[in-house]
Amino acid sequence: MASFNEKETVQPLQTEELKYDQNGLVPAVIQDDRNNVVLMVGYMDQEAIRRTVKMGKVCFWSRSRREYWVKGETSGNYFELKSIYADCDADTLLVKVIPQGPGKACHTGRYTCFFNTLADLEKREGAND
Amino acid sequence: MASFNEKETVQPLQTEELKYDQNGLVPAVIQDDRNNVVLMVGYMDQEAIRRTVKMGKVCFWSRSRREYWVKGETSGNYFELKSIYADCDADTLLVKVIPQGPGKACHTGRYTCFFNTLADLEKREGAND
Repeated sequence: MASFNEKETVQPLQTEELKYDQNGLVPAVIQDDRNNVVLMVGYMDQEAIRRTVKMGKVCFWSRSRREYWVKGETSGNYFELKSIYADCDADTLLVKVIPQGPGKACHTGRYTCFFNTLADLEKREGAND
Repeated sequence: MASFNEKETVQPLQTEELKYDQNGLVPAVIQDDRNNVVLMVGYMDQEAIRRTVKMGKVCFWSRSRREYWVKGETSGNYFELKSIYADCDADTLLVKVIPQGPGKACHTGRYTCFFNTLADLEKREGAND
């Protein structure tokens, strides 16, 4: 059984050391720091990471609108930054946050964006009953 | 304060309804079902999802090797499938698992792939002391 609190002694990464994709982006998994619930996945370039760190609020690059957007700017559902981790390949971020305001991460008004189930899995589960 | 256990009544999605990227892939956030720790992010196409559901073990599409790989196939660090959710846009998956075998998700031998900190954030935290 792995220790869940093992301390790592690794050198901190510079944001320019991250492996951005062909569009200069890395996916950022947003996790509620209080209970580890995954709230959403967005995309960041180096500038969005810089803005996030500077403001202490999560800023994404919107791939559809091609602009920076501070999450919660219009809805009040800010993500207060707690910590950022990169994975072993340095091509994905894990951003731990405290949801602010109404605390609804999803534009549908839900707490998390991950509310859809998959039909195939439901069939499998049904088959196991 | 949002309820963390709210029940949603949404129609389950078919895997063909997911919004795959130009390479036919969706990112899949892998989360330990026991404690909600995020272990890694991989990529799946429709066939990888099908194999994952059929086997009950997580199967990714490797973008670098261009082949399917059952996580843990060589290391024994399988991910036993518990549940799969899609986000509101249906372009990202959240896959809840129970790590098997040695329980080290990362090829570096760590429990999670997200162990790297960012230097910029450390500077900010230092500045706040």
